[in-house]
Amino acid sequence: MTQAELVIIGGSAAGIQAAICAQKHHGLTDILVIRREDKVMVPCGIPYIYGTLGAVDKNIMPDKLLGGAQLKVAEATSVDREAKTVRLSDGEEIGYSKLVVATGSNPIEPPIPGMDKANVFLVRKDPKYLHELGDAMDNAKHIVVIGGGFIGVEFADECRKRGHDVTIVELLEHCLQLVCTQDLCIRVEDVLRSRGVNVVTGNAVKSIGGVDKVEFVQLESGEEIKCDMVIVGIGVTPNTRLAQEAGLSIGPTRGIAVDEYQRTEDHDIFAVGDCAEKYSFFNGQPVPVRLASVATREGKIAAANLYHPRWRNIGTVGTFSTMVGEVAVAMAGLTDTQAENMGYKVVIGEAEAASKHPGTLPDTQPMKVRLTFDRRSGKLLGGCACCTMTAGEIGNLIAAGVVNEMTIEQVATFPMGTHPWLTASPLAYQFTDAASNALHQVIRNS
Amino acid sequence: MTQAELVIIGGSAAGIQAAICAQKHHGLTDILVIRREDKVMVPCGIPYIYGTLGAVDKNIMPDKLLGGAQLKVAEATSVDREAKTVRLSDGEEIGYSKLVVATGSNPIEPPIPGMDKANVFLVRKDPKYLHELGDAMDNAKHIVVIGGGFIGVEFADECRKRGHDVTIVELLEHCLQLVCTQDLCIRVEDVLRSRGVNVVTGNAVKSIGGVDKVEFVQLESGEEIKCDMVIVGIGVTPNTRLAQEAGLSIGPTRGIAVDEYQRTEDHDIFAVGDCAEKYSFFNGQPVPVRLASVATREGKIAAANLYHPRWRNIGTVGTFSTMVGEVAVAMAGLTDTQAENMGYKVVIGEAEAASKHPGTLPDTQPMKVRLTFDRRSGKLLGGCACCTMTAGEIGNLIAAGVVNEMTIEQVATFPMGTHPWLTASPLAYQFTDAASNALHQVIRNS
Repeated sequence: MTQAELVIIGGSAAGIQAAICAQKHHGLTDILVIRREDKVMVPCGIPYIYGTLGAVDKNIMPDKLLGGAQLKVAEATSVDREAKTVRLSDGEEIGYSKLVVATGSNPIEPPIPGMDKANVFLVRKDPKYLHELGDAMDNAKHIVVIGGGFIGVEFADECRKRGHDVTIVELLEHCLQLVCTQDLCIRVEDVLRSRGVNVVTGNAVKSIGGVDKVEFVQLESGEEIKCDMVIVGIGVTPNTRLAQEAGLSIGPTRGIAVDEYQRTEDHDIFAVGDCAEKYSFFNGQPVPVRLASVATREGKIAAANLYHPRWRNIGTVGTFSTMVGEVAVAMAGLTDTQAENMGYKVVIGEAEAASKHPGTLPDTQPMKVRLTFDRRSGKLLGGCACCTMTAGEIGNLIAAGVVNEMTIEQVATFPMGTHPWLTASPLAYQFTDAASNALHQVIRNS
Repeated sequence: MTQAELVIIGGSAAGIQAAICAQKHHGLTDILVIRREDKVMVPCGIPYIYGTLGAVDKNIMPDKLLGGAQLKVAEATSVDREAKTVRLSDGEEIGYSKLVVATGSNPIEPPIPGMDKANVFLVRKDPKYLHELGDAMDNAKHIVVIGGGFIGVEFADECRKRGHDVTIVELLEHCLQLVCTQDLCIRVEDVLRSRGVNVVTGNAVKSIGGVDKVEFVQLESGEEIKCDMVIVGIGVTPNTRLAQEAGLSIGPTRGIAVDEYQRTEDHDIFAVGDCAEKYSFFNGQPVPVRLASVATREGKIAAANLYHPRWRNIGTVGTFSTMVGEVAVAMAGLTDTQAENMGYKVVIGEAEAASKHPGTLPDTQPMKVRLTFDRRSGKLLGGCACCTMTAGEIGNLIAAGVVNEMTIEQVATFPMGTHPWLTASPLAYQFTDAASNALHQVIRNS
């Protein structure tokens, strides 16, 4: 029987990060990563395979990231917690001292009649499947994207870049509604429309029609949309079969239950990434936020805690960014709706200014930051940034404000640096000015 | 006698921000800004007037920023603290209830023989003078820039963009040495050289030669450099005459002494911006950091504290960014040398990764973050980012880590967001990875 000090099941973002950090933290070399796939996709890069990158092979995560860890391409079929072994599909047994479960997630398959027709695709992180999706796209003219979350919005935009006729269908009132504040959702929809995407919201696909191959979708509203390809991106469901069959508990959002050290109830087994339950930074409640950035963070935390609890997971803040056309948007923390649902009375501050200064510099664009504070404590709860390429890092700056529980005053007087080419003017820096403007609201109303 | 509730002397960044925030915080409308200049330059935009903007008029700070505050273009000649009046050069007296002194700074004139020759320019924030500088530059072929700080480096780079033959002369071993960690200094010098700038360091200009107009500079090393124009940017000296003559104390770096609320010893008089003394965030000691971003922050703080101490100035962190050619660099907090001089034992972590992910996306460049932590407490002391356009905001993220005294662990597990177009990969996000790598150093050495 093969034996490894640390066995990691799953070799996407979370598993790789756990392998890297176990080497860094503990100098471990006796690490075995068991991965079903020969090659692993950069998960967030998948929508860009078709429009920008031009090939599945340009979106591969390099195995050299694993460093000294061994890689075994195989399917783990069961875990024996008592014997501390993992069984593979070929019958091989592998002993572990510590086990990290990073089995990821699978795309949700909605129970829509006609899902089985040819040219209906989910977004699977599987190179072979994605190749097939690409081949179908090459021959498609009219594409319907079901789901207006990040993956749907990004796919819709990339399909437009390739010249397809694209319709995106979102069940909720707005695209990105679960993660973005409303004005940002509307902004993203406007950009999609201006780029020629047909945006249908507050509606759902009732059935997918066609003889063998998809020919149209029918909406709940009755409307039929002609299409020769459907891409479904409505979310993921944690892949927890292995853990469940090993008797580990599953949480309310269907992830493997873990404590703040990423330990399952079996303290020699850790769960990280999409397969693990997430808990909100704000109230400790389970939240279904499944992102590669969250996954890698959990991989790091689990690796630090392999032998003794060292690093606490402070919880999931929810820091996202995306890009539609030339418009970049980022969000961190709670949306207004989420904050209000948690019982906060919020105060909002907004600030828009030229992305460079003076605004006469070339390529200057408007950049807006919107911050949401708790009126009672003054603490920053969340915010968003839009629309230039620095939005992602401004989103991270907002996240830093959130995790450090910076108050309106602390944000307003934050010692930012500014430069003509790189940021707004120091007189109008959006992050600090949004806080000043929030304070202004408080003063006016008190 | 005119009377205003709030009189602000000086209408550049700090003064304007104080006027804006006094309106926001206190609903004040009775504000008079006394400013010597008819028009005010965007201070950090000055180097870009000649190469990029193409005109002094494209670098004007709009007076509409002042909102409801009145503007008076005049020179304040004295302050009578007992009578609470400001006297102007035309003899007019203006009464105040609260006074904000934002008189800025003047460029240091080095005692170099030949400074009086034609075509030797300082960098004054005066549109007329900058016009003259531009006219001289139009006719110059060989330009020597004295001083390798931000202003000198930016001027040198912009002059090259216009096709001039440029030499930059810096007294210290490296350009930007006082504010940047050594490898960043070297990087900036390499970029300048690759763009054709002659970079001379560890040397000084001994004299400026020529009949009436400058024809050459002689270096301490004996070398002569032919030139028909000299631009001197070796720093600024606070403009404190008015405050001094009013009996207010001056601090060790020659700024007007203020407390943590930006109050001078006369609690009805505040000093902000370049004319005011700055104190380090790290040890409260005076530091000569004079930047528009620091100035506007102090303007805000003073405005909040006009009637009662409200907002404390936590001290100057030192957050900078600049751009040379296509290379953007940012720094926040202490350099290694500064940290060691303050008695810290430091631990350094570095991380470089592609600015986008996968790295096959167009326009992907390497981006590196370097963080300096206090080995004993684990607290983040400073860091730098180089070289893509998000460096400025990553610098601000580092500053957020510094002011919140984030530890290695907190930075390593920081819940960042990532996106293919906007940031590095979640497996290699530089800010968090630099912390992981710092920890790795600690573990290896313990």
